[in-house]
Amino acid sequence: MAWDTERTRRRLLDAALVEFASHGLDGTTVAGIAARAGVNKERLYSYFGDKQALWRLVLSTELERLAAAVALTGVSLKDIGEFAGATFDYHADHPQLARLLQWEGLQDGQAADLAVRTAHYREKVARFAAAQRDGLLDPGLDAAHLVFALIALAAWWQTVPQLAEMITGAGRDDRRERARRRRFVVEAARRLAARR
Amino acid sequence: MAWDTERTRRRLLDAALVEFASHGLDGTTVAGIAARAGVNKERLYSYFGDKQALWRLVLSTELERLAAAVALTGVSLKDIGEFAGATFDYHADHPQLARLLQWEGLQDGQAADLAVRTAHYREKVARFAAAQRDGLLDPGLDAAHLVFALIALAAWWQTVPQLAEMITGAGRDDRRERARRRRFVVEAARRLAARR
Repeated sequence: MAWDTERTRRRLLDAALVEFASHGLDGTTVAGIAARAGVNKERLYSYFGDKQALWRLVLSTELERLAAAVALTGVSLKDIGEFAGATFDYHADHPQLARLLQWEGLQDGQAADLAVRTAHYREKVARFAAAQRDGLLDPGLDAAHLVFALIALAAWWQTVPQLAEMITGAGRDDRRERARRRRFVVEAARRLAARR
Repeated sequence: MAWDTERTRRRLLDAALVEFASHGLDGTTVAGIAARAGVNKERLYSYFGDKQALWRLVLSTELERLAAAVALTGVSLKDIGEFAGATFDYHADHPQLARLLQWEGLQDGQAADLAVRTAHYREKVARFAAAQRDGLLDPGLDAAHLVFALIALAAWWQTVPQLAEMITGAGRDDRRERARRRRFVVEAARRLAARR
């Protein structure tokens, strides 16, 4: 039954996200995902291929969700600040995504879904570069480095939460501190991009 | 013989750094460290206690080396730019440190060596805050967030090297790109801290 197949796929994907975020690609087993989903291991293989293929699918799905939730609507300073703020919000609300990216960083191999992700980022870089040429943004900083730095400002809090707590004195569950961090990210993004 | 003891300790610490950076606290075994060092496991226990104690010692040693190599000599804009640039250099030259911090971020527990590290960071925050009050730095951004962001700008390249490559189109072994990234970090740090 098609509906049952879709539900089983969904359960396997949800379980894979939890397992991969907890243990990374290397530390996760197909048996562990299947057990968490309550599904036979053989069905996982028949639906998704091997563990690597499932890792790529989970990571690219999460990145598509981020891209859909956080659009760069324009390239004014206000847009760029809001883009950084929305990226911060997304990471704060979806800590599993930062964990997937960290696990990827700790692995030595090539990025999953390389071509699609590269095209996605390069399109953003091209828009920033065009805005610099048009005089909307300061041309003094490399557009690619600027895009990379905005992601750093937004995601670093989730990546090293203990460091954030040592430096700010506030934990990740402090709602007022979260709002302050968001305002900082928005303002910092504008300062980096603003004309001098 | 004391000299022999010191050499054995050193070999165990070097092996522990390699193993912890590769596999994290949870993924590393005492047997693996001892085997890499060519030293009996029992000697590791007698010198360092358990695996947790050795992890704390390795991480705090690496952070002390960073602090010794990268001093914040003053709080002028030039000093702050150079502090960010030197931190970038240190992370680029010592990728194992960023990996240790990432593993710590992926673990849920408290930071190792919490009191010493907190005091170290809070002293930097206090100096930034004083410079803001004195009008040397712009008071519009929270001093703690600013210190945290400078570390993000310096360390993020090592944390997500695949992302850096997708966005910039250049790999981590590209020397000219490394120099460009450093210049960006220095300039970005100054822009964040500069008076408006």
